[in-house]
Amino acid sequence: MNHKAKGSNAERELIHLFWQAGWAAVRVAGSGSSKYPSPDVLASNNLRKIALEVKATRDHAKYFTKKEIEELVLFSNTFGAECFVAIKFPKGNWRFVSVEDLKITEKSYMISEEETELKGFLFEEVIEK
Amino acid sequence: MNHKAKGSNAERELIHLFWQAGWAAVRVAGSGSSKYPSPDVLASNNLRKIALEVKATRDHAKYFTKKEIEELVLFSNTFGAECFVAIKFPKGNWRFVSVEDLKITEKSYMISEEETELKGFLFEEVIEK
Repeated sequence: MNHKAKGSNAERELIHLFWQAGWAAVRVAGSGSSKYPSPDVLASNNLRKIALEVKATRDHAKYFTKKEIEELVLFSNTFGAECFVAIKFPKGNWRFVSVEDLKITEKSYMISEEETELKGFLFEEVIEK
Repeated sequence: MNHKAKGSNAERELIHLFWQAGWAAVRVAGSGSSKYPSPDVLASNNLRKIALEVKATRDHAKYFTKKEIEELVLFSNTFGAECFVAIKFPKGNWRFVSVEDLKITEKSYMISEEETELKGFLFEEVIEK
């Protein structure tokens, strides 16, 4: 499966989780290529709105470009949504990490698998915050 | 330009209008083919959320399948958004029509160009409702 298809499948998996929990969720078209900032997934349950940058990875740390994170924050501020990066490591559950819990390096934002387990919310936690 | 490309361009035009007005807006991926109901465009300005089914047409009336409208309403109720059909006839501006202003026929919902002009909100009106 190519990189893009893997990304779309990870997003569909999340969409499914949200609908199962009584939220509405959509994948955003052209995320990363649109002229305007946009997240990968948008979810809402009438009371809360959540914008997500979604990554499934086989590595033990996940990196994000500064642009990805800055656009996620800019989009969320304008749309009026909370934002998280949703990360899935091979043996773990989905974890939802706040932007302030990412480490800033010279060129990117990153978080290790260990930190993700420590600081990331589980799906059940993020929808009941 | 094929039907699908024309639809995407109409959606991009609307996305642009919303961002210009200080709202955030996205095109939804796989609208119409997703397993879950989804609109074509989602916009929010922190206070209000709007879900749109988007149609540009060269005809003098616009038809929607019952499925399109039912899914727009179902999505919007779950997401917590207001919903409209956004219609553009060749010589007109974008008009935003409430679902209750569509006419129900045996197999579809429809609205004529004339009724659209009478009952549809202009973009400036819909964002300031």
